[in-house]
Amino acid sequence: MTALDALFAPRAIAVLGASATPGKLGAAMTDSLASFPGPVMKVNAGRPDSGLGFFPTIAEAAAAHDTTTDLVVSCIPAAVTADALREAAAAGARAALVCAGGFAEAGGDGALYQQALAEVVRDTGIRVLGPNTSGFLAPHRRLTASFVPGAADLEPGPVAVVAASGGVNHALAFALAEAGVGLRLGVGLGNSLDITQADVLNHLAEDDAARAVALHVETAAEGRRLTEAVRRLTGRVPVVALVVGRSDIGDFARSHTGALATSWRVTRAALRQAGAVLVDDERDLVDAVTALSRVRLPANPRPGIGLVTAQAGPGLLLTDSLRSHGIQVPPLVERTVKELRELLPALTYLNNPVDTGRPSPALTQVVERVSEDPGIDVTAVYGLLEPTAVDLSAALATARTATPLVAVVGGPVEQAWQTRRELGAAGIPCAATPASGSAMVRALVEDAAARARLETTDVTEPGAPTLPPPGPVDEHTAKSVLADLGIHTPIRRVCADSAAAHAALDELGGPVVVKILDAEILHKTEVGGVQVGIRTHEELDDALARMPASPALLVEQMAPEGPELIVGVRRDPVFGPVLALGAGGTAAEILGDVALRLAPLSANEADTMLDELATREMFLGARGATPVDRARLTHLLLALSSLAADKTVAECEINPLRVLPDGGVVALDAVLLLRDSGDQGGSDDA
Amino acid sequence: MTALDALFAPRAIAVLGASATPGKLGAAMTDSLASFPGPVMKVNAGRPDSGLGFFPTIAEAAAAHDTTTDLVVSCIPAAVTADALREAAAAGARAALVCAGGFAEAGGDGALYQQALAEVVRDTGIRVLGPNTSGFLAPHRRLTASFVPGAADLEPGPVAVVAASGGVNHALAFALAEAGVGLRLGVGLGNSLDITQADVLNHLAEDDAARAVALHVETAAEGRRLTEAVRRLTGRVPVVALVVGRSDIGDFARSHTGALATSWRVTRAALRQAGAVLVDDERDLVDAVTALSRVRLPANPRPGIGLVTAQAGPGLLLTDSLRSHGIQVPPLVERTVKELRELLPALTYLNNPVDTGRPSPALTQVVERVSEDPGIDVTAVYGLLEPTAVDLSAALATARTATPLVAVVGGPVEQAWQTRRELGAAGIPCAATPASGSAMVRALVEDAAARARLETTDVTEPGAPTLPPPGPVDEHTAKSVLADLGIHTPIRRVCADSAAAHAALDELGGPVVVKILDAEILHKTEVGGVQVGIRTHEELDDALARMPASPALLVEQMAPEGPELIVGVRRDPVFGPVLALGAGGTAAEILGDVALRLAPLSANEADTMLDELATREMFLGARGATPVDRARLTHLLLALSSLAADKTVAECEINPLRVLPDGGVVALDAVLLLRDSGDQGGSDDA
Repeated sequence: MTALDALFAPRAIAVLGASATPGKLGAAMTDSLASFPGPVMKVNAGRPDSGLGFFPTIAEAAAAHDTTTDLVVSCIPAAVTADALREAAAAGARAALVCAGGFAEAGGDGALYQQALAEVVRDTGIRVLGPNTSGFLAPHRRLTASFVPGAADLEPGPVAVVAASGGVNHALAFALAEAGVGLRLGVGLGNSLDITQADVLNHLAEDDAARAVALHVETAAEGRRLTEAVRRLTGRVPVVALVVGRSDIGDFARSHTGALATSWRVTRAALRQAGAVLVDDERDLVDAVTALSRVRLPANPRPGIGLVTAQAGPGLLLTDSLRSHGIQVPPLVERTVKELRELLPALTYLNNPVDTGRPSPALTQVVERVSEDPGIDVTAVYGLLEPTAVDLSAALATARTATPLVAVVGGPVEQAWQTRRELGAAGIPCAATPASGSAMVRALVEDAAARARLETTDVTEPGAPTLPPPGPVDEHTAKSVLADLGIHTPIRRVCADSAAAHAALDELGGPVVVKILDAEILHKTEVGGVQVGIRTHEELDDALARMPASPALLVEQMAPEGPELIVGVRRDPVFGPVLALGAGGTAAEILGDVALRLAPLSANEADTMLDELATREMFLGARGATPVDRARLTHLLLALSSLAADKTVAECEINPLRVLPDGGVVALDAVLLLRDSGDQGGSDDA
Repeated sequence: MTALDALFAPRAIAVLGASATPGKLGAAMTDSLASFPGPVMKVNAGRPDSGLGFFPTIAEAAAAHDTTTDLVVSCIPAAVTADALREAAAAGARAALVCAGGFAEAGGDGALYQQALAEVVRDTGIRVLGPNTSGFLAPHRRLTASFVPGAADLEPGPVAVVAASGGVNHALAFALAEAGVGLRLGVGLGNSLDITQADVLNHLAEDDAARAVALHVETAAEGRRLTEAVRRLTGRVPVVALVVGRSDIGDFARSHTGALATSWRVTRAALRQAGAVLVDDERDLVDAVTALSRVRLPANPRPGIGLVTAQAGPGLLLTDSLRSHGIQVPPLVERTVKELRELLPALTYLNNPVDTGRPSPALTQVVERVSEDPGIDVTAVYGLLEPTAVDLSAALATARTATPLVAVVGGPVEQAWQTRRELGAAGIPCAATPASGSAMVRALVEDAAARARLETTDVTEPGAPTLPPPGPVDEHTAKSVLADLGIHTPIRRVCADSAAAHAALDELGGPVVVKILDAEILHKTEVGGVQVGIRTHEELDDALARMPASPALLVEQMAPEGPELIVGVRRDPVFGPVLALGAGGTAAEILGDVALRLAPLSANEADTMLDELATREMFLGARGATPVDRARLTHLLLALSSLAADKTVAECEINPLRVLPDGGVVALDAVLLLRDSGDQGGSDDA
């Protein structure tokens, strides 16, 4: 039993605003609910019972049916919803679906109506789905709480949909049906006044028949509660997430407000870190949950794919797509190739992909041999239907493979559909095109990799650093805090005046960099407050003459040349502390090439950040440069993560973080922003 | 009449290796050809005619049928194909489809068989499709020259498929059928021994019933002949190209061989420049040709999209996808919004996208008003089927819109298919998901933009520059060649010795850069041959002491700081001279962020190169930097293009090209490679 059983598994249902007038919401909803096996009571305050079974109140309806109304489905206008639900709760209702729009999303009085509804939830404990949603679908209970025509005909099955929008919930449910996949539960959250994504995910965590979850996110509101729900659920059920809002990010990036990490990116990073598989559009979402509802790989950081194709051209499309997405299609071992040579005609390409030539009865054995190769974790098969040559579904369904299969079947529409259905029934994910097959394989691989990352969850929690009091922090103080955390910073001297700076030059030796030291000035370079490459006292005097006045000076040893990174931690208003790692320099910043993680995080997770950068080659030894020492970089990331555990830390950024010739990293500049303890927004601090 | 009419529009056909044994190629082919209205003669040298209509030779078959065999369909093994075709040509055959594999693609004796076949083509003039292909499909002639089952049932229609592979040809034809789109001609080229992509495209240019072409390219072999065919065809028929090989590029890039421009990229750039729409996978390919077979926009560099959605969530997915791809979804003008306000309930979102709330009969008028907005060139509509609220296909099919429509329809599988078929019949492209709808809209937009680019075809052809004799060219000479073309180079002095360098410093004033000047050394920096920032004679002496010996020195004025580009021209072995523009710096190089164009090119085309860079913001005024002067950059690109017109120029690269504070550009370093006139590979030089 979960808190949402009254909603998703009610004993009896009342429809508020039930109607018999075609075209009205209340009529469509009543029609949809007709197949529900329990009592469905029609309530309409303004309509006398004319023998059609309408009741003026829920209480009267329940009394007449001698039952308790667990669920109220409300099809009445926003303005009267709150009062009606308060009455329903008094009559024993424990959950409500509120379909009407005209609440907070509409502005004006809508905000007041939503507020009133929220008060009912608070006062009575009734759980509310919506408002502003076309409802939810639970085909296995023959429960279609939706006014969308055709929704009642959706087949039950293994995939749950948790969508921000009612329209997307239905669109995905229909798209899954077109892919031959049934629905366990389909929920459109609407305004999420009460019931949220996390609530539904937690409900699904108790549902053994849910085998994969499609999660559609427009705006994540609950931060850590959402990621915890995803993490909990992915332990048993794979979650595939589609996050909307990439283009807003584009606008945001173009506005040059300076933040590398934005809400769409943070949401994606947070969901991925929690174990979700990310997709870019709803086609890939359908493919991914279709595949994951049938097959889940063991945890594996880099599964290898064996490809068998009956036609070289489409097989090449599949291979190209997988390799372009960084999926491993490893060479087969010698033994496998030798075995294949005995099964296949001469002159076909026998390594990965394995080209069988036209489909033949040897296909089953070929697939079996490839699946047994030690480097192969998933075997993907492409075939255009040639029923006279081989029965593709039988050939694959009877194969005794050492790995799961994914099939891609082209051919005449009806026969191909039939074959895909048969393969689906045999538990084999089956796509219609190489692109869809690639999306399926990637979903399996990314789910396995996510679980491998989550296997190591050792979170380093060093003691809290000693922080200065809230208020502006100058560069030297910021670096000293970092140094206390074991982060390498340049040897430096704080100098009260020019004479001290000259003494520091003598002490440190040239070349040095001289900077103004003023906690109030964040952008020193822009005001001419940074002078580099100073070797002589004459150059130092020249430099000082060019610099603006400041309370003090910082003289630092210069670091050797090397590639540069940017690393920082800041508090996201929804997800709390977020760690960012990116390549230094304008190009990478403009490209938004940054890896994000919620803090705290495991060393394992921190270590994957560098690999996510498009520019990672720069730090992995490209062009003869020393590769960055990954252990030291990971240590630095964990140190910054632990810094953020102190809630007075609003933000800390190291820019640039220079990679040294020995692979170490040194913080050449650092900004630390501290806030008052009374200024602690963000869900992580709740 | 085109050269390929004997192949695609034969009067009579002979099947070589015809068979009555199920499962044999020759049997499947004979079955497929059964619907052909003209004579189909079964030829099998090894089979006596047992009353089943088999002939030992083509000549005897033709004589018996009193006809001329235009087309021979060969299902016999590779080893005997050449002789058989020579005999067929002698008997009057003018074209042949060769299905068998085991030719060049198989290695070994296959290369000899292919060579023998090439000789038959050369000697007899017979045109050959293949070998190593499953054939071609011309449903409107009831001509199915394919051994793939079900191919004979494909419906005729407006889309032609020109695929490198027979398997992809069939897979696309079936996928189009699933999308409700018929086939005009479907060709799998196989080994392209004789008939190539360009040949088939040229054939299609004469076919008024072909309305869109899907082009699948594995390896482009003909370079300019292919691009000329695409350019010619796109004047009348849109071409959508899917180029395979992205992942090889990935490997290539990782091998660090230094080339920014690679074959997959060059092929894509060349096809796009010729007017083709590029897609990333076969799903988008099907969506794109489906849309373009029904709608083509007038030439327009940036068409605006009006979005109307009956459900906010899916509409947001469509909006997000379009905007993420850089498609314009502009605000509607005040008049349009006012008109919409009268049609729609209060509180719906009325600007682009226009959210109508649930579908209603007002939909037709809403779509009409949006289409009449002055900023709108395509109107896209999303709707989940709600037949009780509105008949979506009637509402859209009867709308008198000022722009073409694209529809996206979700809903119960059968009803949605029916609606999509009805909309298709009304000439409205109709997708099943927002992602597919986005692919359709993007195809229309990119086709319109390509034609806008091609409208201005003024190609600047300045007089050939004066070039030094073949052999190594030093930096000063290279820069002098560039300066002759009007490209800005730094003020510089060639110095024979240290004394001359000191005099140059006095003359030019500091800071200067001092470089070794040695045509044999391409990588001066790596050997310490470049010293920058020299202001004093003491610094110059220090610098000279650190530099390796060299025949001469180059002393140059240093340019002010600024963003850097890389620009160059090189000769691609297939496409000839290719111009490249990319951001300077390692990050951009690692990311392969480079725009490519074949040379020569129009100013209009050159001007679009910068906009293609992911890092373009760096050069458009990001972070307060002066934007690059586009006219001057375009002039430089055209000058490099004209340099490549001289066939002794093997390669020229300017790296870096510094953007100056006034927006001008200066070539800080330049490499020019000249080749002997006898060393002129590349199809452009044929």
